[in-house]
Amino acid sequence: MNVDGKPHRTIWLSATDSAKVMVIDQRQLPHQFRTVELNTVEDVCSAISEMIVRGAPLIGVAAAFGMYLSALNYRGDNFTQHMEESAARLLSTRPTAINLSWALAEQKKIVHELKDRDQVVSALRVNAMRIADEDVAVCHNIGQLGLAIIRELHQRHPDRPVEILTHCNAGWLCAVDIGTATAPMYEAFNAGIPVHVWVDETRPRNQGASLTAWELGQHGVPYTLVTDNCGGHLMQNGMVDMVIVGTDRVSRGGDVANKIGTYLKALAAHANDIPFYVAAPSSSIDWSLLNGRDIPIEQRDASEVSYVSGLCDGEIRKVLIAPPDAHVANYGFDVTPRALVTGIITERGIAQANEESLLALFPEHLQVAVR
Amino acid sequence: MNVDGKPHRTIWLSATDSAKVMVIDQRQLPHQFRTVELNTVEDVCSAISEMIVRGAPLIGVAAAFGMYLSALNYRGDNFTQHMEESAARLLSTRPTAINLSWALAEQKKIVHELKDRDQVVSALRVNAMRIADEDVAVCHNIGQLGLAIIRELHQRHPDRPVEILTHCNAGWLCAVDIGTATAPMYEAFNAGIPVHVWVDETRPRNQGASLTAWELGQHGVPYTLVTDNCGGHLMQNGMVDMVIVGTDRVSRGGDVANKIGTYLKALAAHANDIPFYVAAPSSSIDWSLLNGRDIPIEQRDASEVSYVSGLCDGEIRKVLIAPPDAHVANYGFDVTPRALVTGIITERGIAQANEESLLALFPEHLQVAVR
Repeated sequence: MNVDGKPHRTIWLSATDSAKVMVIDQRQLPHQFRTVELNTVEDVCSAISEMIVRGAPLIGVAAAFGMYLSALNYRGDNFTQHMEESAARLLSTRPTAINLSWALAEQKKIVHELKDRDQVVSALRVNAMRIADEDVAVCHNIGQLGLAIIRELHQRHPDRPVEILTHCNAGWLCAVDIGTATAPMYEAFNAGIPVHVWVDETRPRNQGASLTAWELGQHGVPYTLVTDNCGGHLMQNGMVDMVIVGTDRVSRGGDVANKIGTYLKALAAHANDIPFYVAAPSSSIDWSLLNGRDIPIEQRDASEVSYVSGLCDGEIRKVLIAPPDAHVANYGFDVTPRALVTGIITERGIAQANEESLLALFPEHLQVAVR
Repeated sequence: MNVDGKPHRTIWLSATDSAKVMVIDQRQLPHQFRTVELNTVEDVCSAISEMIVRGAPLIGVAAAFGMYLSALNYRGDNFTQHMEESAARLLSTRPTAINLSWALAEQKKIVHELKDRDQVVSALRVNAMRIADEDVAVCHNIGQLGLAIIRELHQRHPDRPVEILTHCNAGWLCAVDIGTATAPMYEAFNAGIPVHVWVDETRPRNQGASLTAWELGQHGVPYTLVTDNCGGHLMQNGMVDMVIVGTDRVSRGGDVANKIGTYLKALAAHANDIPFYVAAPSSSIDWSLLNGRDIPIEQRDASEVSYVSGLCDGEIRKVLIAPPDAHVANYGFDVTPRALVTGIITERGIAQANEESLLALFPEHLQVAVR
């Protein structure tokens, strides 16, 4: 997508040095657009855990590049063991998104299948780039399928924009390009269908205010930023035609783990007969897990709630918003039960939120052992 | 309630000069405890509109003192007209809370009934103090009624604290003392029943993080601060026994206007079979209005969402959390429909959220003309 009119992906190999992985430092947005060089697997681990990169698809791709850097820089013995350790370290950076383990499994196959170390390094690089390209293709498909839904909503009310609410950032910044939940919005906007997006600010890290608002604005898509508290009121008053969110993990049964607060929006959509869609590349589907209640929910640091980061006198600073000794809990995700989900938009089609419908699109996972 | 071990109300006449109304500057909390002198009706108007004082009961009491100051300081002719104008100015400071118009109507009666100007001034002062004292008594009754509910919940699970979730600040800081939604918590705590309160931070102004957390902490009540997004997850996972919130206006039919985001918590409570109570002094009930959808919803300034205020290097500063040109909407309140409300705790008893049950407690309003 465009940044100041110039197309960018969120992650790429340096054009001049293929031993450098480049990413956008998303912690600085929307205030500063800065890129960061990742040279080692440790760099990739901290980029993921410190949320320089974030978003389920993107951290999967980043982990794939991490495996490449790990192989490239290793000079010691016990290569396979070293790579297994790197995979374990990358896996431990964030617990909720399933894409991480999916991408690592893809790379580990190469480590175990090929014998020659140079071949492994090269294959890991090529495969990481393939995973990135595939993510773009997958998001494009999701965009086309979502576009059809938006087009239909527009035909119902041709006199006004289609009103879409989204939570957190499932935009191009969470993926490699175009995004998951935002793909239908961008495709509709590009196709000339008037859309307007209600952007939840998404406390505690404000990915909506800092990332979704920024990227929609950069592309020219009309949006309005609201607090997370606001969506119920909007839906109750006929101001939302559909909700689209991303996901960190969809269970085989169709339950959806996503950024904390998603469940509340799903309840409001359900109560007000508003369609609630989840944009989910199949890499986000956990075929081994039937029930969403078994998805591990990350608890993050209290300081993310107590301190808010933003621009003050030209610098990014943190302000304390609570008593200094406040006891804080910071659950990162929640699980929206399948009954509240209208449809799951995958790259192969729109599934109903249940095992049968998901497997009809992805029959190759029929035999996966289910926990 | 206690501040650093010393009892305080939120509003009082200066002990040395009864022409000064003293309030706590709530914009400085939880970082600094400062009191402010209000000397004129203009002072009171800006204290309300700038949210030095906030909370439905407290702004009613403040407006009553504002009428007293207006009368006290006026030397001109057309006294009655001047007082009507003062009342209109006070009324226009905030649109949603009904307490404001209730308190002003109480004071206007005095202006119209008494002839002697000195008598009016003195009666307005006495009546403002009576309204403040009455608020304390009303909150005490609400506390006792809520205590019975908490005691019952405790008997069901005597081995652990009763888990209560609240939204915004309906604490002593929103009233004169003890608070509305917090009254049952303080009464239970004082009675030795173990309670733990989940405090929603309450964006955009963070009254939960800055006020509720602070006042519960000052009194020693255990609490945990969470983002507004978190409550659904807590309720889904059996971590909440009851929800208690305050209100800015209850319709005669039992719909509840309260801080934006309340509706989302009510939906989650309903979906998870958790009782959802509203603490409502009868001054918050609008007997003239049947349906909550007719309650005016205040839209506040965009900067409340784009900028977050907090402590940084010992000073209270604002940081920008969104793109500088972000389009923002800031609805202050939402309406929770009666069907989601388990009970309305008034000073006379706990009503079901419907006209019949509310009027059974307050039969004197049976004949009020209903819009």
